[in-house]
Amino acid sequence: MPPPSALDVEAATDTQAATFIDRLSLNGVPARRSKSPAVSTGLATYASSDMFKSPGHGKPKAKRWDHILTQESNSRELSSLKAASQLLKTPGLISLGAGLPSSTFFPFEHLQVKVPKPPQFSEPETKDFGLLVQAGKHDAAEGKSLYDIHIAFNYGQATGSAQLLRFVTEHTEIVHHPPYQDWQCTLNVGSIAAFEMALRTFCTRGDYIMTEEYSFCTALETASPLGLKCLGIKMDEEGLLPFHMDDLLTNWSVSERGAQKPFLLYTVPTGQNPTGATQSAQRRRELYAVAQKHDLYILEDEPYYFLQMQPYTGPDAPDIPPPSSHDAFLDALVPSLLSMDIDGRVMRMDSFSKVIAPGMRTGWITASAQIVERIVRHAEVSTQMPSGVSQLVLFKLLDETWGHPGYLDWLIWMRLEYTRKRDNIAIACERFLPREVASWVAPEAGMFHWIKVDWRKHPLIRRGEAVQLLELEEKIWRAGIESGVLTAKGSWFRAEGGAGEEMFFRATFAAAGEKDVTQAVERFGKGLRVEFGLLDRNGEVNGQANGHQ
Amino acid sequence: MPPPSALDVEAATDTQAATFIDRLSLNGVPARRSKSPAVSTGLATYASSDMFKSPGHGKPKAKRWDHILTQESNSRELSSLKAASQLLKTPGLISLGAGLPSSTFFPFEHLQVKVPKPPQFSEPETKDFGLLVQAGKHDAAEGKSLYDIHIAFNYGQATGSAQLLRFVTEHTEIVHHPPYQDWQCTLNVGSIAAFEMALRTFCTRGDYIMTEEYSFCTALETASPLGLKCLGIKMDEEGLLPFHMDDLLTNWSVSERGAQKPFLLYTVPTGQNPTGATQSAQRRRELYAVAQKHDLYILEDEPYYFLQMQPYTGPDAPDIPPPSSHDAFLDALVPSLLSMDIDGRVMRMDSFSKVIAPGMRTGWITASAQIVERIVRHAEVSTQMPSGVSQLVLFKLLDETWGHPGYLDWLIWMRLEYTRKRDNIAIACERFLPREVASWVAPEAGMFHWIKVDWRKHPLIRRGEAVQLLELEEKIWRAGIESGVLTAKGSWFRAEGGAGEEMFFRATFAAAGEKDVTQAVERFGKGLRVEFGLLDRNGEVNGQANGHQ
Repeated sequence: MPPPSALDVEAATDTQAATFIDRLSLNGVPARRSKSPAVSTGLATYASSDMFKSPGHGKPKAKRWDHILTQESNSRELSSLKAASQLLKTPGLISLGAGLPSSTFFPFEHLQVKVPKPPQFSEPETKDFGLLVQAGKHDAAEGKSLYDIHIAFNYGQATGSAQLLRFVTEHTEIVHHPPYQDWQCTLNVGSIAAFEMALRTFCTRGDYIMTEEYSFCTALETASPLGLKCLGIKMDEEGLLPFHMDDLLTNWSVSERGAQKPFLLYTVPTGQNPTGATQSAQRRRELYAVAQKHDLYILEDEPYYFLQMQPYTGPDAPDIPPPSSHDAFLDALVPSLLSMDIDGRVMRMDSFSKVIAPGMRTGWITASAQIVERIVRHAEVSTQMPSGVSQLVLFKLLDETWGHPGYLDWLIWMRLEYTRKRDNIAIACERFLPREVASWVAPEAGMFHWIKVDWRKHPLIRRGEAVQLLELEEKIWRAGIESGVLTAKGSWFRAEGGAGEEMFFRATFAAAGEKDVTQAVERFGKGLRVEFGLLDRNGEVNGQANGHQ
Repeated sequence: MPPPSALDVEAATDTQAATFIDRLSLNGVPARRSKSPAVSTGLATYASSDMFKSPGHGKPKAKRWDHILTQESNSRELSSLKAASQLLKTPGLISLGAGLPSSTFFPFEHLQVKVPKPPQFSEPETKDFGLLVQAGKHDAAEGKSLYDIHIAFNYGQATGSAQLLRFVTEHTEIVHHPPYQDWQCTLNVGSIAAFEMALRTFCTRGDYIMTEEYSFCTALETASPLGLKCLGIKMDEEGLLPFHMDDLLTNWSVSERGAQKPFLLYTVPTGQNPTGATQSAQRRRELYAVAQKHDLYILEDEPYYFLQMQPYTGPDAPDIPPPSSHDAFLDALVPSLLSMDIDGRVMRMDSFSKVIAPGMRTGWITASAQIVERIVRHAEVSTQMPSGVSQLVLFKLLDETWGHPGYLDWLIWMRLEYTRKRDNIAIACERFLPREVASWVAPEAGMFHWIKVDWRKHPLIRRGEAVQLLELEEKIWRAGIESGVLTAKGSWFRAEGGAGEEMFFRATFAAAGEKDVTQAVERFGKGLRVEFGLLDRNGEVNGQANGHQ
């Protein structure tokens, strides 16, 4: 897939959302906050995105989704104890009602993290580099902060604390500006937990859900034990093909399929796992139109949204200059499905795992108030809330230390770092993979490089031997391991199982260092040469530095 | 319920478990660790309690529970990617397989907490009191610690990190010494999440589960949307009555009930929520015997286990001396169901919420290897793992700083603090509640004081007016609020809903300070007097300081 031109990037920001005048800008945050209710420093106090959003005048309200809510979801009720906690606002009332322990017994006097200071992120491990950020036990009571150990380490609401919820609500409005009125955010313990809750909210055993032909295997493994069948939608280099989804749905036969027509799509639009594909703005609009036509509900899983990179220019061309401002950075991002969701038919899942750290186990969803309320009712009797320790660390870092501008600085820095990593693996592939059998497209986003291997050229196939594609895939994968590199087999990610028409291997370039990645690609190239019996220019099967052939 | 005599306490430790010679003692931990495999400091490495337990020679193996596993649970499989990660042990292999981000991009150079130093816990907020405990990003690589930001803040296993899993496995063995061979622990994001997973592992829509007549309302609200019906087992001052459970099960009629005979019991044996009742050792043995007779599986939820207190001696009697040693402390604890579980029919849920802080959102279960494996498969595609930030904080505090002896010192200190809080509310009740209509038993454990109110003496009832018990309960509860105290209504906790034969209000004494609790009880007494038209010795309805009547 060719790198997007400047024109494409501009077109990508041309969404309906941009027409609303109350869009929250970075500079608008202080004014917005001054109009919001004060963040309560009480324990486990109720919070909602509605407190922190712009009013959304003139936007349509979300559609109702009653017709697809499951029996399980419909029967979730507000707990009596939680309803009673509203009474706590009565002045002077002493509560012996809620079962909260006393923070007197929390064995922590302070929590401190050392964090890098924007905009200098590039040497985060230099001594005396960075800021010491500290939370005490009673900072709120002492007027030092809105959030402290006393609050964060106690029980809280399933929405997450007001303190962190405010930040993610504002961030969501700044980045996506959902074009309907009654959107809300709620925090969760990670997108897979949110995905499981969403499946139980919408789907019943026997239902089909739709997803990319190759999809995130943990998502597939989440759906399968619930008795849900996955329908793989064909893909190209821009990911899911809406016309194929339209075709499947238009021609759905309940009697042939033994299941009702699918109404739920799970998609990873940006830097998709495993293919690395990123849906263009136009592709997303087409996808949304098909969703409207068939009244689909969309689960938009976007852990890699901020791992969008600079366009790939190849080994010898100069780099594209980095975004010159926060606005230029935001404009360079491909618009989310949430940003075009005038119906409230998207539940977007955001995550701190790839841009802060997976161990936070803290993410959030954005959806219509109806759906958020159902998910919150579920979380109250399940995961309850994300770790208060994580929430406190994130609040101190993102809200109190970096603020929205500093966080965007960080995301710009991540963009450039991932660009470097992507360029490194793309160049290594050009140097070391045998073009006779391997092909790829440098990804625009995410952590994954998706390598297609032309199995038709394998000696066993050429000799006309009877070999199953899955066996051949295993053989080639093992050849990589024998050469010293572990990749992931494409078949692991098949939404409908089995082998596809083509054969792929996924290489993650996020974790390993650049030299290791280069060496690993070299080894994979060698493994392919050995396996496919390819000789290099010296007549040897070793794949050493054979240049840009 | 009278305080247990010394004889009772001794009898409580006389379990079968004590007969096995390989019980882990506090002093035995270093030797045990020296025999265990080294804790891996790799990323997301596999860990199991089996690495850290004593061998358990001569103990029976757990029963199999295949006959009650649900379709959902049975269909959970090990993921392909996780299976492939076993290959990472191959020396020299470069992995491009797993989708882990690089810790280079975690914006944290260190995390530090200030914690109290055992055994001086009593002034945790004095300046310069406490220890600074710090984790760096690469402490493991630098040989400074087994655990660091690089490991903890990345993805990990659903079992929790080896580092923290080792600690809770040893702690479980020290405290409970399960009497069967193949028990294991696994960490979770809190007991309610574990409870929900257990329900989905064992129960199908339409099933009955058994629990105390008055039960933890969040547990009831977890079960209800899954289509599970709760059967309330009658209770006395020692909690659940096993003979009533036996009676119900023996006379179960599938046709009358429209459901199969219940096979799952959810119980809170210690400081039960809401009644505060604690099952004696004898009561637990009877309960276990009934479970064996009817082949029940038991979910033992024990958040308040270490909030067991010194026996209540009343306002004028001297206190019982605190435990003189770690062994004396352990011996003073009522034995858990896990400690008598020779069949492996108990899944115990432990929590750090009441003894460290709820915001950790980190607990663990102990059950047979079969059940732990099913729950881990579920967690892998749901909650994934507890927050790495929480795990790191807990490891640094519990393992590296306090160690097992220091943690037991902390738990002994908590025991004495909660004894003081319990004594305070019990004395306040004796001073301020009208004995004509209110009765109670000082709890032996937990956070809750359960006050019975004799509704039969209410003026409306005496006058023969037609009033529903739930209305009357609401009226009395509102009278408390009007006097300035919020309690929780007993009916909120009814396993089968509706009103019971008796009327109760739950007062939590854990959170509010002692003066506030005293004042709240005084207000509640006043509310009762007003509501029931009771006059004090001055002929006034005010309930002022009317002493020990």
